[in-house]
Amino acid sequence: MSGSSFGNLFRITTWGESHGMGVGVVIDGCPAGLSLCEDDVQAYLNRRKPGQTRFSTPRKEDDAVVIQSGIFEGHTTGAPISMAVYNKNQRSADYSEIASYYRPGHADYTFDQKYGFRDYRGGGRSSARETVGRVAAGAVAARFLETLGIRLLTYVKSIGPVTADAARFDAAQISQNPFCMPDAAAAKKAEAYLSECMRAHNSSGGIVECIISGVPAGVGEPVFDKLDAQLAKAVFSIGAVKGFEIGDGFEAARAVGLEYNDAFYYDENNTLRKKTNHAGGILGGISDGSAIVLRAAFKPTPSIHAPQETVNKNGENITVQIKGRHDPVIVPRAAVVVESMAALTLADLLLAGMGARMEDVRKRYRPE
Amino acid sequence: MSGSSFGNLFRITTWGESHGMGVGVVIDGCPAGLSLCEDDVQAYLNRRKPGQTRFSTPRKEDDAVVIQSGIFEGHTTGAPISMAVYNKNQRSADYSEIASYYRPGHADYTFDQKYGFRDYRGGGRSSARETVGRVAAGAVAARFLETLGIRLLTYVKSIGPVTADAARFDAAQISQNPFCMPDAAAAKKAEAYLSECMRAHNSSGGIVECIISGVPAGVGEPVFDKLDAQLAKAVFSIGAVKGFEIGDGFEAARAVGLEYNDAFYYDENNTLRKKTNHAGGILGGISDGSAIVLRAAFKPTPSIHAPQETVNKNGENITVQIKGRHDPVIVPRAAVVVESMAALTLADLLLAGMGARMEDVRKRYRPE
Amino acid sequence: MSGSSFGNLFRITTWGESHGMGVGVVIDGCPAGLSLCEDDVQAYLNRRKPGQTRFSTPRKEDDAVVIQSGIFEGHTTGAPISMAVYNKNQRSADYSEIASYYRPGHADYTFDQKYGFRDYRGGGRSSARETVGRVAAGAVAARFLETLGIRLLTYVKSIGPVTADAARFDAAQISQNPFCMPDAAAAKKAEAYLSECMRAHNSSGGIVECIISGVPAGVGEPVFDKLDAQLAKAVFSIGAVKGFEIGDGFEAARAVGLEYNDAFYYDENNTLRKKTNHAGGILGGISDGSAIVLRAAFKPTPSIHAPQETVNKNGENITVQIKGRHDPVIVPRAAVVVESMAALTLADLLLAGMGARMEDVRKRYRPE
Amino acid sequence: MSGSSFGNLFRITTWGESHGMGVGVVIDGCPAGLSLCEDDVQAYLNRRKPGQTRFSTPRKEDDAVVIQSGIFEGHTTGAPISMAVYNKNQRSADYSEIASYYRPGHADYTFDQKYGFRDYRGGGRSSARETVGRVAAGAVAARFLETLGIRLLTYVKSIGPVTADAARFDAAQISQNPFCMPDAAAAKKAEAYLSECMRAHNSSGGIVECIISGVPAGVGEPVFDKLDAQLAKAVFSIGAVKGFEIGDGFEAARAVGLEYNDAFYYDENNTLRKKTNHAGGILGGISDGSAIVLRAAFKPTPSIHAPQETVNKNGENITVQIKGRHDPVIVPRAAVVVESMAALTLADLLLAGMGARMEDVRKRYRPE
Repeated sequence: MSGSSFGNLFRITTWGESHGMGVGVVIDGCPAGLSLCEDDVQAYLNRRKPGQTRFSTPRKEDDAVVIQSGIFEGHTTGAPISMAVYNKNQRSADYSEIASYYRPGHADYTFDQKYGFRDYRGGGRSSARETVGRVAAGAVAARFLETLGIRLLTYVKSIGPVTADAARFDAAQISQNPFCMPDAAAAKKAEAYLSECMRAHNSSGGIVECIISGVPAGVGEPVFDKLDAQLAKAVFSIGAVKGFEIGDGFEAARAVGLEYNDAFYYDENNTLRKKTNHAGGILGGISDGSAIVLRAAFKPTPSIHAPQETVNKNGENITVQIKGRHDPVIVPRAAVVVESMAALTLADLLLAGMGARMEDVRKRYRPE
Repeated sequence: MSGSSFGNLFRITTWGESHGMGVGVVIDGCPAGLSLCEDDVQAYLNRRKPGQTRFSTPRKEDDAVVIQSGIFEGHTTGAPISMAVYNKNQRSADYSEIASYYRPGHADYTFDQKYGFRDYRGGGRSSARETVGRVAAGAVAARFLETLGIRLLTYVKSIGPVTADAARFDAAQISQNPFCMPDAAAAKKAEAYLSECMRAHNSSGGIVECIISGVPAGVGEPVFDKLDAQLAKAVFSIGAVKGFEIGDGFEAARAVGLEYNDAFYYDENNTLRKKTNHAGGILGGISDGSAIVLRAAFKPTPSIHAPQETVNKNGENITVQIKGRHDPVIVPRAAVVVESMAALTLADLLLAGMGARMEDVRKRYRPE
Repeated sequence: MSGSSFGNLFRITTWGESHGMGVGVVIDGCPAGLSLCEDDVQAYLNRRKPGQTRFSTPRKEDDAVVIQSGIFEGHTTGAPISMAVYNKNQRSADYSEIASYYRPGHADYTFDQKYGFRDYRGGGRSSARETVGRVAAGAVAARFLETLGIRLLTYVKSIGPVTADAARFDAAQISQNPFCMPDAAAAKKAEAYLSECMRAHNSSGGIVECIISGVPAGVGEPVFDKLDAQLAKAVFSIGAVKGFEIGDGFEAARAVGLEYNDAFYYDENNTLRKKTNHAGGILGGISDGSAIVLRAAFKPTPSIHAPQETVNKNGENITVQIKGRHDPVIVPRAAVVVESMAALTLADLLLAGMGARMEDVRKRYRPE
Repeated sequence: MSGSSFGNLFRITTWGESHGMGVGVVIDGCPAGLSLCEDDVQAYLNRRKPGQTRFSTPRKEDDAVVIQSGIFEGHTTGAPISMAVYNKNQRSADYSEIASYYRPGHADYTFDQKYGFRDYRGGGRSSARETVGRVAAGAVAARFLETLGIRLLTYVKSIGPVTADAARFDAAQISQNPFCMPDAAAAKKAEAYLSECMRAHNSSGGIVECIISGVPAGVGEPVFDKLDAQLAKAVFSIGAVKGFEIGDGFEAARAVGLEYNDAFYYDENNTLRKKTNHAGGILGGISDGSAIVLRAAFKPTPSIHAPQETVNKNGENITVQIKGRHDPVIVPRAAVVVESMAALTLADLLLAGMGARMEDVRKRYRPE
C-alpha cells in the first residue's frame, strides 16, 4: 500500500525520480485490442513538457517515451504496457546544497520524517517529474475512452486573481496562449500578472477545469468508490492541489434545494435530459449522462528565488535562496495531468461496471 | 471493486439499506488490544441520530448498536469487528409512489441505469442511512487515534450564506446549538435562515470543517495515496459532498508563493514548527506535524416538499411533490460523518506507515 | 490486509468467532438481478452442519441463516448481501481450561504470538466455525455460476488410507453415506477405519475432490492471478488443508511431456476438445473449457481425546487431555467448504474477465 | 485485477514478453534503508539463466539487470524500485509458424479465448521469461528477509521418477550438479534419465522443495491470507506448477492425529519448540517458529520436439513438430523462481503484521 499504484482494474504503477535514470509507468488491465502507438502517448507528454514558454522552467527535456511491452502489431494485447522516459538533462549539482535544509512548501521535511532520510536530488520522488508516468498512462486511458465516445477538455480557469470569463469561452483559444486559457483577454491579463510575479521572484497558483462529455449514465460505484470520490482522490493526488470541486462545488453549499436540484425532462427525441447541470454530471456517485465538470485548485509553486526563512538539520533557523530552474506557475502544465488522472479514473470505473448486471454477465459468457 | 469497502489495512465494509432489516459494518484490521465497548460507538452514533432538533427529519430511530464480534474481555482481538444497527421505524408505504419516477437531485435514475432496477424504498443503498456504518466504524477509528494522542474536532462552518466567524470561534458552542456551529451568533442567524427555508418547503447546503491535532509528522504515502488524496476520497464518498479543501484550499489558487509557503522554524525547545499553516498540515501528501485542516461543501438536501419538475418511467414529463420525513439541512448531522471518514483515513495510513523504515521492521521482528 | 476478505470483484468478508454471538459474511459485488432466497443458502449450510452423523461433533447447531440486506423482491440489487448465523449452543465452560496451555496442532500458540493474547473460547477466530460465512457466500456464488451453466460436484476421495475407487465412481452415492464418498464400498471401509480411530480417541485426515464443469474457456488471469493459483489460495485458506493439486497434480512431476500433454482435436461438431485432461482444465492459468479438477489434502482433526504432550504458559511441559465435542474426521463436512471456495474463486474471475477485450467493453457502453 | 501484481504491502508488478524489448518489474513498498545493489539481484538472476547446462535451452541470454529507480547512495529510499532486463537474443523467426495452431500443453488456445488474439512470439506473456521479473524482485525480498535473520534453501527434490534421498541430504551438493539436487547419487540418476528423455525428444517434470528458516512465530493472517494460502497462490502462479504442499502435505491426509500433531515442549533454555514438524512450520495459517517446508510439483515442459497431435485455426486436426530451443526439464531453473515467490510472500506478510498489536503501533508513533 505504498501508493505508487492507482486504479483497480485499469491500474497504473509509476516509478522514477527527478534526477535518477528516468521515470516510467506500467499499465495493467488495459483491454486487449485497443489500437495504440507511441505517437498517441507522445502527444500527451508534449503538453506537459517543460521549456515551452518563458513561464515554465527553462530545464529542457525531450521527454521521449518508449513503449516497452504490451503492444503487438499496433494493438494492446491485454498484457502490461510498460512505458519509460529516460532523463537527459539532470544537473544534480544544482541541488546538492538543499540536502542540509528543508525548503518551505516542499516535502523535504515530511519525507525525512517518514523514511529517515531522502533522495534530495531535485525532490526525488516528490518532484513533479513523477507525473510523466501519469500522463503517459493518461494518454492510453484517453484513447480507451475515445473509442467509447468519451472526450475530455481541460484548460486553465484562473491564474492567481485572473479568471477566464465563461461568457467569452472559446475552446480554440486553449492551445493558442501559453496559459491554456479558453479566453484570450484573460490570458493577456495572466501574462501581465505572471510577469510581475517573476520580477518579484515570486510564483502563482491557479485553477484547472476539466469537462468530460459522452460518459454514459451508470458509471461509478454507489458507496465509497463513487465516481466523484475517485476523481477527488485522483486529482488530489497531484502535488500542489489543495481544493477540488464537482459541478457547482463550494457554491452548492450556499444554494437552496429548489434552485440546485437539476430537473429531469424528456426532450423531443424522448431522451432523458437535465435542464441544468449544477450536479456536474454525477448523482449518488454515479454518472447521469450529462457532462462531468470538475475543478482543481493549485497552490503557488513552492520553489521561488526570493529569500525565505527556514531551518537546517543542525537545528538552526536560517534564510535560504533556492537556486535551480523552476516554473513561476505550474498550472498550465498541470492541466494535462488533471486530464490524465480523470481519464484513468473513468477507465477504471467503466471496467468496474462491466459486471454490475447479471444479464451482461450472462451475455458475455453464455451468448446464444 | 463494488466499493462498499474503505481502507486497505484498517478496512471497513458497510451493508444495509434505508428500509431493510438494518445497517451495519465490519471492520477488519483493527489492531489487537484496543479497549472498546458499545458505549464508545453509541456516543458517535448519537451525534448523527435523526429527530433531535426541529431542523432534522422527525423520523425517530434509536440507532442502538450491537457489537457482534471481535471483542474479548473489553479489548479488540485483531478479529473483524461486526456491528449492526437494526431498523425500528421503517415505513415503506411512504415511498412506494416514488418507484415510478426519478426524484431530482437523487440517485434514482443513476441506480436504474447502473443496475437495471433499484430498491426504491427510501433510496435503498443511496440513502444517508448507509452512513450509520461509517460512523460506527469511525468511532472505533477515533478510539484508536485517541490512544496515539490524535484528536478530531468537527463543526459546521456555514449553513447556506451564514458563516461562523473565525474570530468568534468557541469550541464549547459546538454542542450548544442545533447546528454544531462554533459561534453562537452565527447559529442564531442560521436558525432564522433555515426557518425561512422550511416555510418555503426548501432546503439548504453548508460547509463542515474538521481539525485534526496531534498527528505526528510522516503519515501518508507520497504518490497516489497521499494523506490529502485519501481524505479527499473519504469525504467525497459521503453523499451530497460537492467540494473539498485542505488548508487554504481554493484560496491558495489566488495566492503567491512568498505568502503561501509556510516558514519552518525551531521554537525555544528546539522543536521544528511552522509560522503559518496555509498548507493545512500536509506537505507532499505527508503530514508535517501541524494541525490538519479540511473542509467539505454539502449541497442542499435534495428531498424537498415544494413541487418539482421531473420525468416518470412511462416517458412523461411530470410535476411531483415528495412526501416523507426529510431534513431541511443535512449538514449538522453530517459533521460526525466527515469526522468518521477522516478518522478512518488516518487510522489506515498510520498502519500503512508502520513498515516504511527498515529499522522499524527490524525492531519489530528482531528485537535485542 | 488482515485477510478476512476474499476476492476482488465478487468479494466476501467474514466475521465471528466460535463462541461469540454468531458468525456472518458480507458479499460485495454480486451482480444485480440474480434470483436468490434464504433457502438457497440454507441448503449449502446444511451440508456442513455438525451433529448429523456419529462421525461428526455432537454439538448441535441449527445454523439458520438470515439474509439482512442486498435482496429486493427476490433478486440481488447489486448492494452488499449481509448474512448471519447466530450461535445457539455455545458452552464456553468446556473451553475455559485451555486458556492456560497450547493445544498441539491448534493455532493457540501462533495467535498468542501474533496478537499478544487470544480469544480462547473454542478457538475463537481460528475455529472451523468461521467457515459458516464462507459456505453461505459460496451458496450465492454457486447460484451465480449455475445461471451461467457452471456446476460443481464435490466429494470425499479418501479418508485416511481408504480411497474411493475411480472405477466404481457413482455420483448418486455421495449423499447416501456419512462420508460423502462416491463409492459405497469405500464408504463401508471408511466407516470401519473411523470407528477404530474413535475407539482410540484418535482422528483421521482425508482428501476432497471437486469437479467443475461448464466453465467456458478463457477464465483466469495469466500471471499472478491464474485460475489455479487463486483456487490454490482459496482452498489452502481452509484450516487443516496441507496439500492442493490441479489435474494430475503431483503425478505430473513423474510424467513425461509426450504422455502428459493433452492433445487438442475437433470433434464431429467442429468443437475444439482435448483427448485427455491431465491438465485438469487449466492451461497457462486460464480455463481451457474442459472440466476443472482439484484436490485438497486435509490433516487429521487436531482435537483428540487421547493424552498429548504440550506446554503451558507457566513454562512447564505438561500432558493434556482435551475435552469438548469434536469431529474424529472433518473431511466430509469440509467438502462443501472446498466447493464454496472454488465457487467464490470462479465467480470472482468471471467478473474480472468481463473487460478483457475492447470489443466487449464497446458492446457494453456503446451498443448500436 | 489483471493480475500482473503480487503482494499487498511489498507489492511487485511484472511486465514484458518473451520476444519483446525486455522484461521487468516494479517493486512498491520495500522499506527505506535496505542496502541493495545490482549484484545482489544479478546473483539471483544467474540461477535461472538459460544455457548453463546441456539440460536447459541453448538460447543464450545475459539477463543483465538494470536498477532504474528507488536506490540512493546504496540504499532503498522507500520509492518504487524499477528493474529491467532487456532482451538480446530474440529470434522471432523461429516462432512465426505457431501463430496458426495451438501447441498442446501451452496457453496458446486459452489466450486466444480470453483476449481474442495473442502475441504468438515465443508465447508472449505466457512464456517462462516472465519469471525474470519475479526473480529480480525475489532477490530484493531475500535481502530484506536476510536482514531479519530469515534464510531460504531451495533445491530439486525429484526429477521424473528420480528422488533425492533425505538420508543423503547434502546442501553443498545443490550447486554442484546441473539439477540442483542435494544428493549426488540422485543427480547422477537424473542425468541418465534426462539423457534418455532428450534422445526421445521428450521432457520431464519434477518437484522443488524450499526450506525457510529463521521465521519468527506470528507471521501470517488467520483467515483468507494465511501464510500457507499465500504461499500456495505464490507458487501456483508459476507456470507448470500442478501441486503444492506444506509440511507432510498429501501424506497428512493418510495420517492420524496422534502421530501428526506436533508436540510442544520447552527446551533446556526454556525456549518453546516442537518435537516434530509435520505441520511444516505453520499452524492456523500463522508461522510457529519452526522451519517452513514447502514443495511444488512441476509438470513436464510442454515444448517437445516429438510429433504431437493438435488443431489449427482453420478447423483442422493436424500433427505438429515444434521447433525452437527448449528445456527438456524446467525444474532446476525453476527452483530460484519458487524461492523468489516464497521470499516475496514472506516479505509481504511480515509488513502486514507490523500493526497487529496496539502496543506496537503505540511504540512506533508515541515513543517515550
